[in-house]
Amino acid sequence: MTTEPAVTTRRPGDELTERAGELDRADPLAGLRSRFLLPEGVVYLDGNSLGALPAAVPPALADAVHRQWGGDLIRSWNDNGWWQAPLRVGDAIGRLIGAAAGQTVAGDSTSVQLFNALTAATRLRPGRPLLLTDPAHFPTDQYVADSVARLTGLEVHRLPLADLPGFLAARGDQVAVAGYSPVDYRTGELSDMAATTDAARRSGALMLWDLCHAAGALPVRLDALGVDLAVGCGYKYLSGGPGAPAYLYVARRHHADFDHPLTGWNGHAEPFAASSDYTPAEGVGRARIGTPPILSMLALEAALTAFDGVDLDEVRAKSLSLTGFLLDCADRELDGLGFTAATPREPARRGSQVALRHPDAYALVQALAAHGVIGDMRAPDLLRFGVNALYTSHGDVLTAVRQLRAVVLAGEHRQERFRRRGEVT
Amino acid sequence: MTTEPAVTTRRPGDELTERAGELDRADPLAGLRSRFLLPEGVVYLDGNSLGALPAAVPPALADAVHRQWGGDLIRSWNDNGWWQAPLRVGDAIGRLIGAAAGQTVAGDSTSVQLFNALTAATRLRPGRPLLLTDPAHFPTDQYVADSVARLTGLEVHRLPLADLPGFLAARGDQVAVAGYSPVDYRTGELSDMAATTDAARRSGALMLWDLCHAAGALPVRLDALGVDLAVGCGYKYLSGGPGAPAYLYVARRHHADFDHPLTGWNGHAEPFAASSDYTPAEGVGRARIGTPPILSMLALEAALTAFDGVDLDEVRAKSLSLTGFLLDCADRELDGLGFTAATPREPARRGSQVALRHPDAYALVQALAAHGVIGDMRAPDLLRFGVNALYTSHGDVLTAVRQLRAVVLAGEHRQERFRRRGEVT
Repeated sequence: MTTEPAVTTRRPGDELTERAGELDRADPLAGLRSRFLLPEGVVYLDGNSLGALPAAVPPALADAVHRQWGGDLIRSWNDNGWWQAPLRVGDAIGRLIGAAAGQTVAGDSTSVQLFNALTAATRLRPGRPLLLTDPAHFPTDQYVADSVARLTGLEVHRLPLADLPGFLAARGDQVAVAGYSPVDYRTGELSDMAATTDAARRSGALMLWDLCHAAGALPVRLDALGVDLAVGCGYKYLSGGPGAPAYLYVARRHHADFDHPLTGWNGHAEPFAASSDYTPAEGVGRARIGTPPILSMLALEAALTAFDGVDLDEVRAKSLSLTGFLLDCADRELDGLGFTAATPREPARRGSQVALRHPDAYALVQALAAHGVIGDMRAPDLLRFGVNALYTSHGDVLTAVRQLRAVVLAGEHRQERFRRRGEVT
Repeated sequence: MTTEPAVTTRRPGDELTERAGELDRADPLAGLRSRFLLPEGVVYLDGNSLGALPAAVPPALADAVHRQWGGDLIRSWNDNGWWQAPLRVGDAIGRLIGAAAGQTVAGDSTSVQLFNALTAATRLRPGRPLLLTDPAHFPTDQYVADSVARLTGLEVHRLPLADLPGFLAARGDQVAVAGYSPVDYRTGELSDMAATTDAARRSGALMLWDLCHAAGALPVRLDALGVDLAVGCGYKYLSGGPGAPAYLYVARRHHADFDHPLTGWNGHAEPFAASSDYTPAEGVGRARIGTPPILSMLALEAALTAFDGVDLDEVRAKSLSLTGFLLDCADRELDGLGFTAATPREPARRGSQVALRHPDAYALVQALAAHGVIGDMRAPDLLRFGVNALYTSHGDVLTAVRQLRAVVLAGEHRQERFRRRGEVT
């Protein structure tokens, strides 16, 4: 972490400064920032990769460690509700993604949940030879789709999301399941979940959404849209901590036939009967796998209380205000400095991040970090700035853009120390 | 937790009391107990289900939460070594199971690791139609074996461990992989890992050991025995916390051909290149799956430091002393009260727990817990008492047995409040 002061956002008479102040003063969600423990002197715009630390987490985790594990020991599985945690946390996530209770289970990683869900999907739609995914999808979604297809004898068809409705209309009867993300993890482009889900439904194919970049950032209405399956991680906009448990949503109409390959004992109808044969539990509980990482699970549960009483429509409105303001700031402050916006201008097509293209993206992100402005980059040339309406301010956004301008004007991104690639970018 | 005092282990002139004292005074590992935060007034004999809290965990976890997540945020993946944690923690576990560095990866649950390993095993041994498992195996091992067989077209053959060498000699050329545990999770019986592994090797079948009830409790020598694959959990004798990450060992000779189904992006050769195609990393790192639950992972890592400088041969010697003493105490104190030992008397056939049969096992375990003596039970009639040589004393063992005697003599196990079954037993 740097000790250099960030560039001030206060320039007398400056219109952007005034506007940031006005927007922040009028922000109905401004008070939520106190629900997070943000480090001093840092502008954090990477909550789309790892959400900031919610203030509710440290005491909850200390209690989980000292009183529950240390004191109550094995009895905590009953007495402190550990056994029910995957379903309880699943329902808490469900409330943020438009899923009525009893359809969401928390646990494992997104990759594992994807594998389980896609394989089960092929069994829900036997005789259909195609598994569709996006050639621009996050890598793990593509790798897992390939792996499931290999095991089940299906064929993966990589099709851009924009072409999906047309394909489903023409050949949808051959499609078992389509696995897509409503938000492009690189550009931040948001697509029309309703139209795509509807196209899948009409063709009889199952629709699986990966909500990693959507949940907690904008209203998602899984039940209302008739989505079949969804997965997502707990550590981006949900701020559940590094590698926080993921989740799986299975629409209630599929529970009885949800026949998944990761048949761990936690999903058994009678997990303590020690039967040699797997009989799945009723409901989404059958999608539980092995014993979940309780400390990470309880951290996620505490983190989700940052959403208590929060209206996701207000989150969405503020998120759009933040990303819109970021694009405006970039227009004004970065003009002629080699940047182009990769994120669409239209609000309806924006997720909760802004991506800027620049050939020196890697070095720029490193140089920015040295000034306490944290974004990230995706190869080859994207700078990503995620906003989380629960803790990001318009002032943060303006500071980040002005710091980026200062870095470029000073040529800092040409310094060797910022051009060396670390292990993780 | 009870506030009633446990039955005293001090009876003047009592031979068992004297012996417990002598054994504990002569115990070279007695000082290790201070590496754990054990609650006052509790005798904890369920470390074979959930290990006690190591003293190193709370400060490590507080640092992980406040400084690493809260302060350093996304940069912790590099700066605080999060990215390397699964391999670093894997190696720390490897040191306890006789695995040279670079063959063990930590993460996910035992169920998930089993699925990945068994599926990969069928690909390492194509053309062999059988997958062997133990009809007495922990349920998840059996369920996952069935699931893998279903997906890969193999047939599961359930064969008691005692019959395995003979079967392998006769029909081993048809066996792709045999998945067994060296310790029966119910009776605590320990089998001969060397002989069984050797029988598998001679037949060309792969040997997979589930070390959940062995790792940390006794020396395991995976490399020396020529084991092919192993899995285990982090929360029993390793004391890594509830649902602590599991681990997978893949012998180095299989790395290049280890072709697993859970192809998450963390196992990619270039995880940040965002390639659409899965190219596995070199070495056991390819068995990484999705983003691991870092808080639970770092708790496990801290917990493993309780083994620093500890000789597992000494752990084994003390464990046998504890279980032997427990059997002796049971002979003396429980004679005529309806108990029979399910655990073998021969030291070479004992793991690190003693199981006693009694028709009222459930109520007895509940009544014992009300007196601060924590064991557990497995249906229908087994009381299990696990000992962990790092924190269990002979005095604990004697207290437990005497409390059990007192409970039976007082008829407490016949009280209705102890006979009602809770959710988790």
